[in-house]
Amino acid sequence: MASNSPLATQQVFIDLGERSYPIIIGAGLLGDPGTYLNLPAASSALIVSNDTVAPLYAQALQQALQGHYNQVLQVILPDGEAHKDWPTLQLIFDALLAKGCDRKTVLFALGGGVVGDMTGFAAACYMRGVPFVQVPTTLLAQVDSSVGGKTAINHPLGKNMVGAFYQPVRVICDLDVLQTLPPRELSAGLAEIIKYGPIADMAFLDWIEANIGALLAREPTALAHAVRRSCEIKAAVVGQDEREAGLRAILNFGHTFGHAIESGLGYGQWLHGEGVGCGMVMASRLSQRLGLIDTAFVDRLRALVQRAGLPVVGPRLSATDNAGRYLELMRVDKKAEAGEIRFVLINGPGNATVRSASDALVREVIDACCE
Amino acid sequence: MASNSPLATQQVFIDLGERSYPIIIGAGLLGDPGTYLNLPAASSALIVSNDTVAPLYAQALQQALQGHYNQVLQVILPDGEAHKDWPTLQLIFDALLAKGCDRKTVLFALGGGVVGDMTGFAAACYMRGVPFVQVPTTLLAQVDSSVGGKTAINHPLGKNMVGAFYQPVRVICDLDVLQTLPPRELSAGLAEIIKYGPIADMAFLDWIEANIGALLAREPTALAHAVRRSCEIKAAVVGQDEREAGLRAILNFGHTFGHAIESGLGYGQWLHGEGVGCGMVMASRLSQRLGLIDTAFVDRLRALVQRAGLPVVGPRLSATDNAGRYLELMRVDKKAEAGEIRFVLINGPGNATVRSASDALVREVIDACCE
Repeated sequence: MASNSPLATQQVFIDLGERSYPIIIGAGLLGDPGTYLNLPAASSALIVSNDTVAPLYAQALQQALQGHYNQVLQVILPDGEAHKDWPTLQLIFDALLAKGCDRKTVLFALGGGVVGDMTGFAAACYMRGVPFVQVPTTLLAQVDSSVGGKTAINHPLGKNMVGAFYQPVRVICDLDVLQTLPPRELSAGLAEIIKYGPIADMAFLDWIEANIGALLAREPTALAHAVRRSCEIKAAVVGQDEREAGLRAILNFGHTFGHAIESGLGYGQWLHGEGVGCGMVMASRLSQRLGLIDTAFVDRLRALVQRAGLPVVGPRLSATDNAGRYLELMRVDKKAEAGEIRFVLINGPGNATVRSASDALVREVIDACCE
Repeated sequence: MASNSPLATQQVFIDLGERSYPIIIGAGLLGDPGTYLNLPAASSALIVSNDTVAPLYAQALQQALQGHYNQVLQVILPDGEAHKDWPTLQLIFDALLAKGCDRKTVLFALGGGVVGDMTGFAAACYMRGVPFVQVPTTLLAQVDSSVGGKTAINHPLGKNMVGAFYQPVRVICDLDVLQTLPPRELSAGLAEIIKYGPIADMAFLDWIEANIGALLAREPTALAHAVRRSCEIKAAVVGQDEREAGLRAILNFGHTFGHAIESGLGYGQWLHGEGVGCGMVMASRLSQRLGLIDTAFVDRLRALVQRAGLPVVGPRLSATDNAGRYLELMRVDKKAEAGEIRFVLINGPGNATVRSASDALVREVIDACCE
């Protein structure tokens, strides 16, 4: 996709020693061969995409890579969180082995969070590790999932339960591709952008509130700033705690409730970002009930989530014991320890903390936040 | 299993910075609670074993761990290389999630190389990584596969194609368990012990030749020395090249031919160590044809492999083009690059190198070494 945008290309650097890499943010990047200079040398590359994104962008990426590799292969996965599973992952290994790809082969993840997570996990495992590049095509993937090296597939009993910490060698955020994003996907991405405000940067939250209209209208300069600032905050957190020994958990604000919603409704009913949006409202309500923030802050966050086009009322996950079902699902969250759920909470504006809460209080919050 | 052996417990240390760990070698270790002191704290442990080993040792390990964890779970896999696949791996994840195991849960691999490789890979992937302990019950696993952090499962198109470099937190080599090992498994372990001589330590090769009878008779002091010296050599190599950027590949001496045999016959027909034994004969013959060693050295190694009870003649893998089939299978070896097979060869006694060879020469060697 050619760009007429006057945007300058920007870089955010993830500093992880020998696993460091740049996030490149700009217009017209995806189809430009220059974007892919100086990657690890290899004879083969494999583009992994899905049947929604591939028709739009796979050919442009294929052509941009053609000069860099002897063979550029493609594997197209079925679209959607419901396919973030082992049989679908196996399609990537099948393609690699059928074409004789060796352990220098570079994988390119062309798609949203699901494609990125699966391609990254395949790269982590194929011959015990090959390089991969993230080419995120959703706003959510550009500001969150493509950055930081979390890769995974789902298990029937829990989301992202099987995976690896495995860093890409480069992330390419082409802002042009956001123009073709369905509105629902745009809103889902805004959820992860909004997230960075309450946990880390209240000035950024102010900016998002002032510019939510421009973001929804996909104004390139607004998108560029939102993507860059989000990546900067994420880079700073990941740089301090790559494997989530502590601090990094704050990036999961809204995710504990959100994962329960996604899993309880069946993957693919709500988008991940929708679960996170609603989950942030629930987690901030819990923070308020614990005395960490005031009601005005909850209302402010709720209003912004709603303006972003996201759900703010939790779905019922059980006709008989809705709160009990939420609790049951949240106990398999990866942050849980010995069956105790660990919530990411807002500990005063711009500050996050991880702690547990009594089941009784969590039940109250769920009852207050659900339909 | 109580031990009457007077053997002192010994340690070999794998030096990998924050991923360092000890290999503990001795008698009576498996059932001793003291063996498992000071592991990472956790509320749950999961013993992974197979239906051959579990009846012999799972209860002793369970009892030894009982005091260290709130719950000690077990999952018993079907035995054999044929089950080193995803559906079997999934049994481990199912058990962990069904029992609410969190990301501090410690996995214990109780078995041979297959159990160790699968448990290690499950530990690498479960919630993106939990600690695991190797409790190898075969000689092969004690001297090779349990040490160094290579984990994997097989793919229908190639052995160990999907896996991770993931280090255990401790390796427990209880020499007592070798007394129950079937003779064929003992010989398979001797293949990996013999391997360390030609690639790294000719004095050790001399010692093995002088003590092969004692090893086959399972004399504890001979086994103790063989295990310790093998682990020392492996530790030195892995400490210099954890992820096999170069040097570590020498540990695959005999494995390129051996993997082709294993895969060509169907996993489980020949034991891994049998493939390696025969593969070392073939690789040393190739070394000789390339002028790197003399015929006397090939004959010497062949005689020792044979005395160890291992096959020294390669099986026919195709009725029409046997050498062609070997070549085809070897091209999917992980060391291959851009379709070129990389052989580990003996470059003078006690010294290994990695290089390619012409198909014509490799065909000659295969024809000379097969039935």
